[in-house]
Amino acid sequence: MVKKSIEILDTTLRDGAQAASISFTLREKIRIALLLDDLGVDYIEAGWPGSNPKDYEFFREIKNYSLKNSKIAAFASTRKKDVRPEKDQNLLSILESDVNSAVLFGKSWTLHVKEVLKTTLEDNLMIIADSIEFLKDHGLEVIFDAEHFYQGFKEDPDYALKVVNVAGEAGAKVVALADTNGGTLPHEVMEITKYVAERTRVKLGVHMHNDSGTAVANSLVGVVSGATHVQGTINGIGERTGNADLIQIIPNLAIKMGYKVLKENESLKKLRTVSSVVYELAGLHPNPFQPYVGENAFAHKAGVHADAVMKNTKAYEHIDPTLIGNQRKVIISELSGTSNLINYLEKIGIKIEKKEEKLKRALSIIKELEARGYSFDLAPESALLIVLKELGLYEKFFDLKYWKVINEDKLALAVIKVNSRVEVAEGAGPINAADLALRRCLVKDFPELEKVKLTDYRVILPGEVKNTESVVRVTIEFNDGDRTWRTEGVSTSVIEASVMALTDGFDYYLQLNKKLKPLFLKD
Amino acid sequence: MVKKSIEILDTTLRDGAQAASISFTLREKIRIALLLDDLGVDYIEAGWPGSNPKDYEFFREIKNYSLKNSKIAAFASTRKKDVRPEKDQNLLSILESDVNSAVLFGKSWTLHVKEVLKTTLEDNLMIIADSIEFLKDHGLEVIFDAEHFYQGFKEDPDYALKVVNVAGEAGAKVVALADTNGGTLPHEVMEITKYVAERTRVKLGVHMHNDSGTAVANSLVGVVSGATHVQGTINGIGERTGNADLIQIIPNLAIKMGYKVLKENESLKKLRTVSSVVYELAGLHPNPFQPYVGENAFAHKAGVHADAVMKNTKAYEHIDPTLIGNQRKVIISELSGTSNLINYLEKIGIKIEKKEEKLKRALSIIKELEARGYSFDLAPESALLIVLKELGLYEKFFDLKYWKVINEDKLALAVIKVNSRVEVAEGAGPINAADLALRRCLVKDFPELEKVKLTDYRVILPGEVKNTESVVRVTIEFNDGDRTWRTEGVSTSVIEASVMALTDGFDYYLQLNKKLKPLFLKD
Repeated sequence: MVKKSIEILDTTLRDGAQAASISFTLREKIRIALLLDDLGVDYIEAGWPGSNPKDYEFFREIKNYSLKNSKIAAFASTRKKDVRPEKDQNLLSILESDVNSAVLFGKSWTLHVKEVLKTTLEDNLMIIADSIEFLKDHGLEVIFDAEHFYQGFKEDPDYALKVVNVAGEAGAKVVALADTNGGTLPHEVMEITKYVAERTRVKLGVHMHNDSGTAVANSLVGVVSGATHVQGTINGIGERTGNADLIQIIPNLAIKMGYKVLKENESLKKLRTVSSVVYELAGLHPNPFQPYVGENAFAHKAGVHADAVMKNTKAYEHIDPTLIGNQRKVIISELSGTSNLINYLEKIGIKIEKKEEKLKRALSIIKELEARGYSFDLAPESALLIVLKELGLYEKFFDLKYWKVINEDKLALAVIKVNSRVEVAEGAGPINAADLALRRCLVKDFPELEKVKLTDYRVILPGEVKNTESVVRVTIEFNDGDRTWRTEGVSTSVIEASVMALTDGFDYYLQLNKKLKPLFLKD
Repeated sequence: MVKKSIEILDTTLRDGAQAASISFTLREKIRIALLLDDLGVDYIEAGWPGSNPKDYEFFREIKNYSLKNSKIAAFASTRKKDVRPEKDQNLLSILESDVNSAVLFGKSWTLHVKEVLKTTLEDNLMIIADSIEFLKDHGLEVIFDAEHFYQGFKEDPDYALKVVNVAGEAGAKVVALADTNGGTLPHEVMEITKYVAERTRVKLGVHMHNDSGTAVANSLVGVVSGATHVQGTINGIGERTGNADLIQIIPNLAIKMGYKVLKENESLKKLRTVSSVVYELAGLHPNPFQPYVGENAFAHKAGVHADAVMKNTKAYEHIDPTLIGNQRKVIISELSGTSNLINYLEKIGIKIEKKEEKLKRALSIIKELEARGYSFDLAPESALLIVLKELGLYEKFFDLKYWKVINEDKLALAVIKVNSRVEVAEGAGPINAADLALRRCLVKDFPELEKVKLTDYRVILPGEVKNTESVVRVTIEFNDGDRTWRTEGVSTSVIEASVMALTDGFDYYLQLNKKLKPLFLKD
């Protein structure tokens, strides 16, 4: 039997970015978009160019990448009431974004038509119809978001339904019913969505907010009641209490309800990584209690014998945690740990047996470091350096013998000794100075490092005890124009942690180019 | 019309305490019990004396308090299979706890009866019946939790239903249907609960876990389908991904669905405080995105939008935040206009006209700083300092004349001069050293700063060009045991940015306490 598909629209970069305290940079947006494409969502709603002109940069930049799974969509409102579509700034902003898909939002609640739009109910239907038609005429496919749909329906079901049908007749590919203020409860979503689904032929979607704590459930109930398109964000980030969390919705739909979601079922395994990278880029601590992907989601009380847990997993685990890239917590999951590493090693051309003792030893070093604040999820290449050392595949190309950073009011100097070479450099700040001095030491022997750019740098306190006394974790992203890699340093000092991550970053590049590439003759 | 009541059983002290990383002391348990009694829940399930003998202390100690609203219940399993009730340690532990109410859990899933209990289906019914009867005979009221009910029902609905009826006939006051592994989805809860409710006369309850992210919804759907008793925990704390969150369920039932919950409707206002005290005692950070009570639950970001919210709160707020003790929060950001600032100022007692020139000037300074990498979303108090200066409400309590941080291999020292006082301090890292030295300079004149703790610290590169050359943004969160505030510094140097944020943080506290409080006589 062919499974029924549910289409996923991710709006992390648009609705998610409206969350308090979240603001993504252009590079972060690109990184998230590539991650979502790799995960295999159907649509990436990436910005609202009419409201935020900076979003144009994203639409321009993303064209340099060829996406394999997802369509990029731009968001806008329907046209203003007395403006013709071809003169309307909102609609023109979509054309200017040069996308093939648009998400248009419009009113379906009579109160809002009258009091916010200040127009007639009939005119609002016209606005919706000709806004959609305008974009269709320019070759775009259009998803229509019916704002405040559930609230509107409660007040005037006939009008709300009419909005859906008018949008469908105007050519909208999907009409998404939005619970804009998040106030609707699951049994109401069921009743209303069913009612609509029985009375329209257009493909229905749902767009839920979590103000009542039921956004995930509302999305699932929406699907049970006839919707085949679901909008949400990674980790449920979004305004107020957030949007519906795709990280929870996707496995519920795929594993529990048997729908086809994402381009490949195997991609469910990427959910945990996608979740943790988005937390990091959003500057949020991951929620250890998050369903499916949280650190405690499959944690079992200490003291229970591992065998008992294994036998009785069905009783206390609603799904197999590996399906979504998570793992059971009490059991030291040597096997799933090593398979992760094997996977990484294969990517750089190294094939190794799962039972290899050296690999296990590397894993135990990694686990020890993670207990001290490292997170190799975020910087796998620092972990790979450890593995290479354990496997005897590492060659010491340079030795950082000494470093010192001098930072006075306007002056930032770093003195670094590598092997027998001492160099000093002045930088815009202490970390920049360290970067420059380190390069001066290395570049004569390794001119290829000139290609290496630092593309991201971030510091967080990994521990729960938040205080400047705690250790900080510095993550640096490098790029040589072709590859991207990330390394980490952990220390009580930001500068020391940065020097560690910098050193690892250059070291990894040299291992790859001078040691591994010649060895395996592949990239 | 008399509203229908829903009974609430809180199991924060029993099921909640099984969460990873949570362990309450006796004093903390008493404090939570008194808080729950004051809130007005019907039952406080406070411990499992048969499994955790330390729980006896609680049952003994709580007798010294006279509770006004809640009944204290002890938890235990039904008797062992070959033991008579009067000899069964589990049941005797309930009597020993000297409570009037018991929660007994037993099997309703045939697989578990056979493979875990290793007995017959008939014998399991006997076990349930005579365990309940034994406690009833000793004068207790009994709530029966049917473990794994929904899973069991899917495999053998007749047997699962029989368990409910046998428990009811044996005298259980309530039979709670438990989704023990949290794997059941709302539409399944609806179907199964309705089926049971139509075929039994006993009062039904629901006990949900959050593994699918739908515990709140499942509880509400359970009520819609016939349950009149709901079990859960404060903030949803509990094993794995936690239990159903009463902090979200209670207002949904009371405000949205019109049920009578808690002894007094006014008590809803206490929800926010109950939530935050339990977070604190559990050693967890409050979730700012938590529905109803989270810091961002009624936060509004964009300027235009914030203006619209004031005009039409119904559009973006599903309920009035004051009903549950929360408040509207307006975020100062790039996009925001003066109405956001006015809102903030009002909170600290300053009323000002929207058209005030000084306010506009402050806003333009803020916007300029945001273009340079500040984000006052994240640290509104740094923005407020600027506004206070522009409004002439700022008083310079101290002047940071000089600072220098010395950071060598193992040594981190900071020398700071404030006014005419110079101090030095050694820290675990350079920022800790700066914090300590700054406090040394200030604390003699301002001993109130001793109460001020740093509760979060983070650094990111806000710029588009991410490179160590770029500026970094440091955000620090402070707390004095009562208030929380956040400040920011932006610089090419992490240390300089940190010193700026630290200084602002102390400065803001002094403005509030020494300048504004005396001025407006309110907090």
